[in-house]
This record gives sequence, structure tokens and C-alpha cells, in this order.
Amino acid sequence: MVTATATIKFLQSPTSPAWVEQALAHLDVILLDHAQCERKAAGVALSLINRYPSDAELVRVLTAIAQEELAHFAQVNQWLERRGVAFGPLPPPPYGAGLRQQVRSVEPHRQLDILLVSALIEARSHERLGLLAEHCPEAELAQFYRSLMASEARHYGAYWVLATGRFPRPEVEARLQTLATAESDLLAHLHPQPRIHS
Amino acid sequence: MVTATATIKFLQSPTSPAWVEQALAHLDVILLDHAQCERKAAGVALSLINRYPSDAELVRVLTAIAQEELAHFAQVNQWLERRGVAFGPLPPPPYGAGLRQQVRSVEPHRQLDILLVSALIEARSHERLGLLAEHCPEAELAQFYRSLMASEARHYGAYWVLATGRFPRPEVEARLQTLATAESDLLAHLHPQPRIHS
Repeated sequence: MVTATATIKFLQSPTSPAWVEQALAHLDVILLDHAQCERKAAGVALSLINRYPSDAELVRVLTAIAQEELAHFAQVNQWLERRGVAFGPLPPPPYGAGLRQQVRSVEPHRQLDILLVSALIEARSHERLGLLAEHCPEAELAQFYRSLMASEARHYGAYWVLATGRFPRPEVEARLQTLATAESDLLAHLHPQPRIHS
Repeated sequence: MVTATATIKFLQSPTSPAWVEQALAHLDVILLDHAQCERKAAGVALSLINRYPSDAELVRVLTAIAQEELAHFAQVNQWLERRGVAFGPLPPPPYGAGLRQQVRSVEPHRQLDILLVSALIEARSHERLGLLAEHCPEAELAQFYRSLMASEARHYGAYWVLATGRFPRPEVEARLQTLATAESDLLAHLHPQPRIHS
């Protein structure tokens, strides 16, 4: 069981009530954006596999994560179809690009940063899907969000384990501190367009 | 059931006995390359989803394909671990780049070409995994190849259905003819390094 404490270990600031309000007022857009998030998360896992093909453990762990993200992508798309929401692109919030800017370009720093940024995104998704599970007035949709939470928690745990298995613990912790500050700063002001990471 | 005739509908020339000989003499390398093929196939499906996010049917079909490719990737990697083959990158044969050169850059031609090139790659994979299933002297590995064949056949069928559902049938058939010729030409001379598409 991952508790709220485990989430706070990764995230520097909790999500504001304003985000919850914004998300609940735009559940269809949030679902559409959520689908994009799952697709992108699968893509990130695949690109890490592509970049570090000799690392059997990393390949195994990230293949499982990519499979789960794709399964969730399919599930979210079923929700979209069911609600009659048109599939389509959605301009992303600045969150992803902002985090990518934090990734150092030289190895091995690059690998550490991508693993930690991925852990942070999963941790934030875990926190926010939890808020949707708690506050969504549609019982079945709330239950769906609840069903995804455990995976998100497993994913950020997996990224953390990959990071600490490949880099000295003090280095990982110091870098997480920096990246978690950047992550919280990116969410300090609510993005006007409702998104999972607005 | 997809028969040999259905394969021939897509492929202009059958695989040479020289390829089978080369592959059987280098089963470990073929498995390593096979893993890359499954990963790349998942990546192609994901990039199509990313490019055409408003097409709900395409998104649904390609999500299922990407999920299957990833499951196969995991299975092939289990074979590599079992055989003690070190994971790692492998320079690709000219096949993929050669096919990508055939893809016209302007829409909607681009979409048609990617769907047909993907169908051709799946059809060729189906044919070659079938040859490995038939000729591999290791019974369990042969059985594994046999187990993958049905999916590859389903995949090329799915790409074909996506193409014919979005473009006029005569245009699809004419373009398939051209691309299938290019595909066979790319394999006319055996690539010196053993690969699934050498």
C-alpha cells in the first residue's frame, strides 16, 4: 500500500483545491487530456527502452509500465467513446515542456533526470487521480479513477527503484529535491486550460 | 485463418532459402533483432495514434496492436534472458530505412503509405516467423514462433482494413503494388548481417 506520506516524499507541494474545482467543471476535457498523458507515458517508457537497450532490468520494468499505460489509454478512450467526447488533439499545458527543460543533456545525468522526472509525473498523476476519485460526483467515473491509482503509485515506485539502483543514493535524493521543487513551481499557478497537469 | 495465399496477396516475392539458412545459423542474433522489431512496431503504432488522434477507430485498432507488440517484445526478451543472450543494440538492416524512403511526405498520401508499409512489414514478419516455425530445430522455440504468427497476420489485416477504410480501393491497391515491389527489391539481396528483415 502506498500512503499519502509516500506521495509527499516525492511531491513538494500538494495540489490546490482550485485545480480540483477546475477539473470537476471540465471532466470531458480532463478525460481527453488524461488519454494523452497515458499515451505519452507509454512513449516515454518506450524511448527509455530504446535509449538503454543493454539494461535488461530497465527494459523489463519499463516494458511492463508501457503495457499498463497503453491498457489505461484504451480504458480512458472507452470512457471518451461512452460519453460521446470527440477524440482529438489538445494543446498540452506547460508542465511537460517545463520538466523536460530540467533534464540535463549529458549522460549519465540525463538518465537520472529522466527517471526522476518520470517518477515525479507519476507521483503527481497518482495524487490528482486520487483527488478525482475522491471528489468526482459521478460514482462510476470516480471508481475508475480509484482503479488507476495503484498503478500510478507502482509506476513512480518503479522509476524510483530504477534511479536508486543506478545512481548513488545521496545523488538521487539531492537531484529529486531540485526536480521536485521545479515540478511544484510549474504547478504553482493554475493553467487556465483544464488539464491533468494544469 | 490466414493462408499462404493471403500472404502472397501482400508480398511480391517469397523469402529465399538463403535467408532461412542464415537465420537458423544465428538464432540468438535473430531473437535480439526480433525484439527490436517488436519494440519498433509498437513505436510505429503509437506514432500513428499521436499523428491522427481524432480518428477513434484508428486509435482503437492501433492501441490493440501496440499492446500486442509490447507483449511480444516482453516474450522475446524472456527468450533472450533464458538463452543468456546479452541485451543490446544491433545495427538495423537497410530494410526499414528503405521502406521509410517510399513514404510520401504530404498528407493524405503519407497516411496511406505508412499504413501500407506497416501492412507489408507485418506480412513479411508473418511469412518469416512462419519459416522459422517450420525450420527451427529447437522445438520449443519453433512453437514460440508459431504462436506469434497469428498476431502478425491479424496485424497486417488490420493495417489493410485501416487503409481501405480511409482511401479508395483502387488507389490502395495501386499503391500497395508499388510499395510491395519496393519491399521485395529491398530483400532481393541477402543482407550480410542476420536480421528478421535481412
